[in-house]
Parts: sequence; structure tokens; C-alpha cells
Amino acid sequence: MKSTTVLLTDVSSQTWIEETLIDAVSHPDFSKETGWFIKKQQLHGGTSEGVDLITIHNGALTLSVLPTRGMGVWKGMYQGTPVGWDSPVKAPVNPAYIDLSERGGLGWLSGFNELICRCGLISNGPPGKDRGGNPLESELTLHGRIANTPAHFVSVTLDPEDGGWIRLTGKVQEAMLFGSQLLLETTLETQLGSNTFRIRDRVSNPGADNAESELLYHINVGAPFLEEGARFEMPFAEMAPRDPRAAEGVKEMNTYLGPTAGYAEQVYLFDPVADEQGFTPALLSSKDGGIGFLVNFKRSTLPCFTLWKNTQPEVNGYVTGLEPGINFPNFRAEERERGRLKNLDPGDSYETEFEVSILNNSNSVDAVRQKITKLTEQAPSVIHSDPHSKFS
Amino acid sequence: MKSTTVLLTDVSSQTWIEETLIDAVSHPDFSKETGWFIKKQQLHGGTSEGVDLITIHNGALTLSVLPTRGMGVWKGMYQGTPVGWDSPVKAPVNPAYIDLSERGGLGWLSGFNELICRCGLISNGPPGKDRGGNPLESELTLHGRIANTPAHFVSVTLDPEDGGWIRLTGKVQEAMLFGSQLLLETTLETQLGSNTFRIRDRVSNPGADNAESELLYHINVGAPFLEEGARFEMPFAEMAPRDPRAAEGVKEMNTYLGPTAGYAEQVYLFDPVADEQGFTPALLSSKDGGIGFLVNFKRSTLPCFTLWKNTQPEVNGYVTGLEPGINFPNFRAEERERGRLKNLDPGDSYETEFEVSILNNSNSVDAVRQKITKLTEQAPSVIHSDPHSKFS
Amino acid sequence: MKSTTVLLTDVSSQTWIEETLIDAVSHPDFSKETGWFIKKQQLHGGTSEGVDLITIHNGALTLSVLPTRGMGVWKGMYQGTPVGWDSPVKAPVNPAYIDLSERGGLGWLSGFNELICRCGLISNGPPGKDRGGNPLESELTLHGRIANTPAHFVSVTLDPEDGGWIRLTGKVQEAMLFGSQLLLETTLETQLGSNTFRIRDRVSNPGADNAESELLYHINVGAPFLEEGARFEMPFAEMAPRDPRAAEGVKEMNTYLGPTAGYAEQVYLFDPVADEQGFTPALLSSKDGGIGFLVNFKRSTLPCFTLWKNTQPEVNGYVTGLEPGINFPNFRAEERERGRLKNLDPGDSYETEFEVSILNNSNSVDAVRQKITKLTEQAPSVIHSDPHSKFS
Repeated sequence: MKSTTVLLTDVSSQTWIEETLIDAVSHPDFSKETGWFIKKQQLHGGTSEGVDLITIHNGALTLSVLPTRGMGVWKGMYQGTPVGWDSPVKAPVNPAYIDLSERGGLGWLSGFNELICRCGLISNGPPGKDRGGNPLESELTLHGRIANTPAHFVSVTLDPEDGGWIRLTGKVQEAMLFGSQLLLETTLETQLGSNTFRIRDRVSNPGADNAESELLYHINVGAPFLEEGARFEMPFAEMAPRDPRAAEGVKEMNTYLGPTAGYAEQVYLFDPVADEQGFTPALLSSKDGGIGFLVNFKRSTLPCFTLWKNTQPEVNGYVTGLEPGINFPNFRAEERERGRLKNLDPGDSYETEFEVSILNNSNSVDAVRQKITKLTEQAPSVIHSDPHSKFS
Repeated sequence: MKSTTVLLTDVSSQTWIEETLIDAVSHPDFSKETGWFIKKQQLHGGTSEGVDLITIHNGALTLSVLPTRGMGVWKGMYQGTPVGWDSPVKAPVNPAYIDLSERGGLGWLSGFNELICRCGLISNGPPGKDRGGNPLESELTLHGRIANTPAHFVSVTLDPEDGGWIRLTGKVQEAMLFGSQLLLETTLETQLGSNTFRIRDRVSNPGADNAESELLYHINVGAPFLEEGARFEMPFAEMAPRDPRAAEGVKEMNTYLGPTAGYAEQVYLFDPVADEQGFTPALLSSKDGGIGFLVNFKRSTLPCFTLWKNTQPEVNGYVTGLEPGINFPNFRAEERERGRLKNLDPGDSYETEFEVSILNNSNSVDAVRQKITKLTEQAPSVIHSDPHSKFS
Repeated sequence: MKSTTVLLTDVSSQTWIEETLIDAVSHPDFSKETGWFIKKQQLHGGTSEGVDLITIHNGALTLSVLPTRGMGVWKGMYQGTPVGWDSPVKAPVNPAYIDLSERGGLGWLSGFNELICRCGLISNGPPGKDRGGNPLESELTLHGRIANTPAHFVSVTLDPEDGGWIRLTGKVQEAMLFGSQLLLETTLETQLGSNTFRIRDRVSNPGADNAESELLYHINVGAPFLEEGARFEMPFAEMAPRDPRAAEGVKEMNTYLGPTAGYAEQVYLFDPVADEQGFTPALLSSKDGGIGFLVNFKRSTLPCFTLWKNTQPEVNGYVTGLEPGINFPNFRAEERERGRLKNLDPGDSYETEFEVSILNNSNSVDAVRQKITKLTEQAPSVIHSDPHSKFS
């Protein structure tokens, strides 16, 4: 069998499949494995009305992807362990119900509950008036528009190579007359039976004018990976707290509190170090090291890493963010000043790549830890105890 | 037969019924009565696209409820008499088409046409910048968000007790990361053949931080109850006009003009008095006393009452509002100052209760009037001719 | 056969047809011609989710109309020639995904890709704070709300007269409590086999208060009509550039550049001259005069004409606008000052009328040119080389 592609959405050809199930019954030739499936449905009711949902199950790992929310990954499950977090926003929210400008530009928070949520493409970071860049894009809202822009193209490919790969492709565009044009083409892939999925994105400028871009992956994890005594580890060259609040916790940066009433978020900004293949492992592991959530990102494509600690009480959202990005989530004007915006000429593009692995035993957690320790021994690991102008 | 519950919407379990009819054919054991039904449908076209509508008919009284608009009651009909008003906004509007922030925070008016519309849960009253409370909620829009938030849970229960009760339950949540969390659980119930329905609401704080709440029931009635010479009656301890415009009409407060070109709204604020059961009857009756619209509210749960007179020409919306609330619809900062906000600690809740009855003969209108007269005789009934700092 | 009308949408009676095909098979008695059809469908996916689309094919000319976007005409096709333009916004956008207030009031651009897009009804022109008029309408957004307001009524009529006419009728309302009420009733008609369609609109004030109105038809054309050396011709009494940027190009006003990097839009404002029937022909023709796009508008109903030149690179939107209006697209306060707003008393209305013809041979283009030349010879044709206070 060769690769098979099923087109789920293509607005340009007015193609859209409301519901379908792709599995070993519909595609018996794909693999010897039979437990996998890809399910497409549309949610209804509440603010989820009209949200497209794609569930991918590779036989071991389940992921739910939201084309309506910019191809974000809502949540996952690996052999019974939930992967994600519990936001006060319980279900996927159709962007039709979100006003990004409300609450002083913080409307984005009304829909935020994903495991992986892109922040971009024009900007990310706090809202405000940025007098640089395209004048039509001076009124920035928190974390930009891409997570609230529905994908106009979605397809799934079954590739039988190496026992079977499932690949989900989506396209999401930010564009309007006189505005910057930015096209996201994303592929999420996972091998049958694997504990890993990989995301490869390309952001291009199909317009005729130069366009600035920011992009950060807000990868958010709660229990059971996050708990009191859970640890964060990653090899890095340099790190600084974002602000005085984060500076308070620099020494305890790599461990976590349990759910804590009154906790205010702490954010740390890193210059990551990569292994010989160019990948940086960022690991969140449980206190006893029995399970781990690993983000392995290609450093050359994602040179900035942000750690978001938000160990609020569970009902408020007990969560930490492992956030590789092309930039840090400072206000865009600051990132422009520090040279961290992508400046895309017409036709230009950039790519990013990372993979996420769920480690469900102490051996696999230990192996990653040893690797990080080794890389750390070779790395400068400069820790600023106060905010540093290089970072924020 | 025991109670039967039909689940219509539950986003958490991805349950949603597009269309159904529950009636004596589908549920023959519910009651000896056969004329009742509950119909669920979804509206399409115009700005009603995607709005869920539930019509309840108890054999005499018909009510249409809008889960998509925060469980508001769109309109009613009692034995041929329409209950509600004619807004310039003709049909239910999907909140997806509403921008609450537009027009200086008055976008709420673009969807306002209900018989019963909740104003809350974070705030009600005019838009503006409130520097108190949660900083994420400082930019207030008119009457808050609850009427433009779709319910994530809806079910209907048939309870055979006392000849048969229909109960509609809904849940609507305001929540986002870092924001106040407020959950509305509402039950609307009516007995088969009755001229009355009752609403019982509970607002709780499922979050870990203190949350402020305001809630007012904008209960709006036009013809045939409202007409030139129609009367408003309610026992009260004290009353004041909201502003100089209302002060102009204090003496004629309890009677109405016909549709009047150029009429500007007049608002009166009351401290209501309750009967021995703790309920305050607020009555709008036609000029000849032949029909009446009665709101009977539990004063301990709804200590503030606002009368909204808006006898504009019919095409502009000829309407009056009988509005029990936990607060008055002043700007939130003023209500905070006067101690009328609910301050909910984590896990705390408050409840409200009222019932609406349609009186279609002079005997029943007279009976309520006599009761009000009696309560009024025992009440102080202080009338301020000018705005008073206790109220506004 | 008499006229037949098919109701496609009527929110007041909860009528809505998701999909239908009206053609010579379903309506064999309508005409001897058989190639015509009217197709109703609903789009899905991306930001087109939920958009109603009506495609009319008269046997030669195809038009797609968007009830969800205020009855705008998305695009056309005449005997293989595409009629319209390529906006960076590729597909019809459901207004649910548009926030008109964003980007400083320029959110309208996020949905702009139509061949014919109405700008109104309360205002058009740039965003800003207009202290005149209804206080609820002081915060104006670019080009008003009508193009982002779904039609609440749509029907199609087959009229067998003269070989067969197809008529599409729609109603779109702007209204809210305390706001101006404006109702658009539009009819688009085309004769079977014709290269022409006609639009007749009526805007009325169903409210009880005076209402101001602006209305402009943003009629937008790109290739193949627009190309380097394409020409614009129209008889006029007086013309002025809108601003210094337009003044730069006054001498070359009636010819076009090819797609030009860095081109900034140029806008010219005209006092048009009509023929004996009261119609003004505005013609865009290709360089060799082989094809033409003709707007023939009833000058008494559309006394202002705006030419929008926007010969940006194709990927940015290579387009020109032939824009008859009741006003010029200046800020509303300026148009009020110059007496160009419609001031509708309760019950009043105004009508507009124009037709669009696709000319696909040099003979028909020549005939229109000769007519324009003749009318021009009799017209003053005053050309201001600089902005003039009469216009802007």
C-alpha cells in the first residue's frame, strides 16, 4: 500500500466532512496494527457549537486536535494517563464566541484550555499599542490570533512506512487587504503504537510586502505530571527570570509547588542548549520520576524557551507551560528591539519542529534525565538571579 | 411513574440533541393531561443561525427558552395572549454575532428582545471602567455577559407529582484563566395547566478566589398588559427615582403612558416589602384590570427592585421592565460602595427565586391588587421625589 | 406559467432551506431555456463555516450571492471570464468571526473579498468618533455593519416574462433598542441568457425616530478587466482627487498600472453625468478594448461616484473599485456637513438602482465608449488637480 490521504476540509473546493471514522475496518491495508483510528466530528452545544474535532489514536497515544482553533492540540491520553491540564474553560471554544479585544485585549484567555496552543503569527505576548510594524497591526491583543483562526484546509495521511504513520496536515491563514499575510502549514505525525508525536510547522509570507512574525508554542501540562515536587530539567546556556516576581523563585525554578492558593505566575526565559542532533530536551517529571512529559525541540528553529509556572489551585488551572518559540512572550516592540522577530520577505518562510513524548516508567525518565545532565555538564548554565536585558 | 429526565445538551459528554419532541405520545405515563409538549429545535438564518430554542407548553402556558442566550426566556403565550414585547431586534440573536464592547460597551442592546433576560454575573448596569474588583474585569460592558453565554448543559425533567410538573434545567458558566469563575444553575418549572412558571437560580463560585457577582432579572412586558393607563403596583418600604429624568414622573410612577414619541426611559428603585411567605408581588395590570402580569419574587433572595418605564412608540420597543435583583443596575463601582455586590468565597453560592403568573380575568387581578393594597397599608411606602443616595 | 417564488430564508416563520437546486428539471414551465439554475448551499470549514451561498446561473452569467454577508455579491463568471478580484481573504467569511472594532475599527477588512459589497447603512468611510447623530452610533467602524449582517429573509422568484427573469430578494436589518433602525430590501435580477444583472435596493426607516444613513456600493474588479493600460471612463461634471496621494495621479486617473509593488491606493471623487434615461455609464475596459466591465447607475439615486485605484501586486489584491453611492466615503461627520447623509424620517425610505454588464467583445465595448464620449462632450468635465472642499 502507498500513502492514502483523506481530505477533511478544503474551503477552496468547498469540501468538508462533518463526521467520519478512519480505521482498520475502512483502511485494512494500512498496517498490521488494528487498534488505531482517526475520528472527525463536530461539537455542539455551549460555546463549543460548531467546533471541528479530530481525534487521533495511534494504538497507544490519543490526541484531539481542533481545526477550528488554529490546529491546536486540545488534550491527549497515553495508556490511561491524561495529558493536558484542567482549565477553568472546560470545553473547546468556537472563536466565534471570543472577542480578543475585550478585557483590555485579554479575550484570548476566554478560550485557553489546550495542551498545545500556538501564540502568533503576527504577535504574541501581552496586549498593547505597538507603534512599529504594519500600522494596521498596532493594536495587539494577548498572544495574537492564530489560536482563534479556523483552519481552511485539513487532511489526514496514512503512510504505511515503518509499520504505519498517521499524519495530520492543516493550513491556517492570517490575511486581509492592507494587512500582513501569514500562512501556517502544520503537520502533526505519530507512528502507530508510539508514545511520541511530532509537529512540523512552516510559516510563510504569501503577500507582496515584508511581514513580521512571532511564534511560540504554549505547551501546557498539569497533573499527574505536575505535582508538588515535580521537576523541570533542560540544558541551557543562560536563564533569567522575567520579572521581580519570577526572581523570587529563581532558586526553586526547577521544582514545583503543589496547588497553592494565591500563587502568582512565575516565568523564566532560557537560551537552550541542544544535543548533537540539534534537539533540546525539556522534561517535566513527577516527584518520584515515574512519569515524564518531554518536549524535544529543534533548537535552530526554536531558539527561545519560556518556562511558565502557574501552580494555582486546581480549580483555577494548576499548570506549567514548556514553551519553545522563535521569540520570548514579551511585548512585540521589545522583541523587535532585541532582534527576535522573523522578518519575512515576500515568499519567505521559516520552519519549526518539535516532538512530545509521554514517558510512563522511571527507566525512560531516567534516560532523559541522564542525557540532560550530560548536556548540562557541557553547558554554561548561567543563571541570572534578576531580570536581564538580554531576555526581557 | 417516577421522574424522567431527558438530557438535551451536555458539552462535557458531547451530548446534544438537534431536534426532539417530548409529549404525551413519547411519554404517555407522565400525566393524564395530553396537551403538553416540550420541543427542542435549532434556528437557522439571519443572526438566529445556530440558536437553540426550547418551547415548553404546559397545556395552557407556552414559554420559549434560549439555551444559546444564557437560558433567557424569549417569550410566552397564555391562552392566546402574547407575553413579552416587540423589540426592534426581531428574532433571537446568536451571541456569535454580538460584540458586547461595540458602541462604547452597549453591544448588548443588539441582542436584547427577551421576556426574561439575566443581567450579570460579574456585573450589570452601564458600561465603564471599574477600578475595583478583579483587574481582568475592569472594562465592564452593559449588563454583563451571561445573556450572551450559551448554556453548556440543558436537561428537561418530567415529574408526575401533583398532576405533572415540567422542569427545565440549564447551566451557564463564566470562567477563564485568571478571571472570576461563576456558575449559574437554573431551573424553570411549571405545572401542567398552570398560568404560572417559577425560576430558581443558584450562582456559585467554583474557583479558588473570591468573586464578586451582580444579578438582575430584566423581565420585560409590552402590550396587551402594557397600555395607556396600565398600572404598576407593589408593596414597598422606600422608593426613589434613579435620576432627574425619572424624578419628573414620580407622581405618575405607577401608571403608564401609551406609546409616546420622544419618550426617554424612566427608572425607579425600590426597597420591596414581602408577604408572610416572604414573597413580594409586583403587578402590571391593564387599564381596565382585565389582565395582569405578576412577578412574585422571594424578597430575601432578591432585595432590590427596579422599575423600568420605556413607553416609546411601538416600533421602537414599547415596554416596561419589572426587575428584581440582588442589586440595582447602577455602575458596579457604586453598587460595591453601597454593599450590594455578592462577594462569593470559593465554593460559596447564592440562590434566587421568583415566579411569573399570567392573570387573564379581573377576579384574579383584583385578588392580587387587594393583597398588594393590604401589604402597602402595613408598609412605610416612603417615596423620595428626588434621587436618593441610598439607591443611586 | 405565472411567477413562482421559493422562500429560502424567513427567520420570522423559522423557514430556512439548507440546500436546494432550482432548475429546468424542478421548474420545467419557467422557460424554453434549460441551462439556468439557482443553487442554495451552506459553506463549511474555516471562517466560511455556516455561510449561506446562493449561486444564480442565467445560462450565460453566473453570480454567487452571500445572504450571510448582507446579500453581497461574492463573484461572477461570464462565459468563462471570471468577474471579481482576488483578495488576500480567499473565501466568504462568516461575520461571527469578524470583530469590526479590532485594529482601530478596521476589522471590516478581515472579510472583504466581494465583487459587490455594500458600505452602510448607518455609515461608511473611515472609522472614528462622530459626535453628531445618534449618540449610540458615535463609534464608527470602517464601512459600517451591513456587509457583516446576515439577511433574515431571502427568496427567489422565477418570472416567465420576456423569456424568463430570475429575481433574488433579500432583507437585512440594522436595529437595536435605542439605536437607529434601517431596513435594506434588495432585489437582484437577471434575464435568462443576459450579460447583465440589475440591483434595486430600498432602505427604509421602520423606527419612530429620524435616522441618518449612508450607502455606497463597493464594486470591485480585478483581472482580466483590470490590467496595465486598462482604462476607466465615465461622463462627469466635476472630479477631484481625495487627498495629496490621489492628486499625484490625476493626469493618469483614467488609466491603470499593472500590479505595482509599494503602490498606495488612490481615490477620485466624481459628480457624474447621466444619459437621457438618467443613467451614468462607468466603464472599465481592458487595454485592447476587447472586454469591459460596465456599471450603469441611476444618477438620481446614486449621485456620488468614487473611483478606487488599488493596483497592488496580485497577491495583495490587484483591484479597482467603481463605487456609486448616495455619499462619498469620507468620515461621516464630513459628509453630514456637506449635506450628503440621507435623513430618514420614520417610515421614509430611499431607493437605489444600478446594473452591471459584462462586455466580452470590442464592438460592445466601443459602443459604450462612444456613448461616454458623446456624454462627455456635453459635460463640463471639470478636473481639480488638488483635493476640493466640495468633495473631501
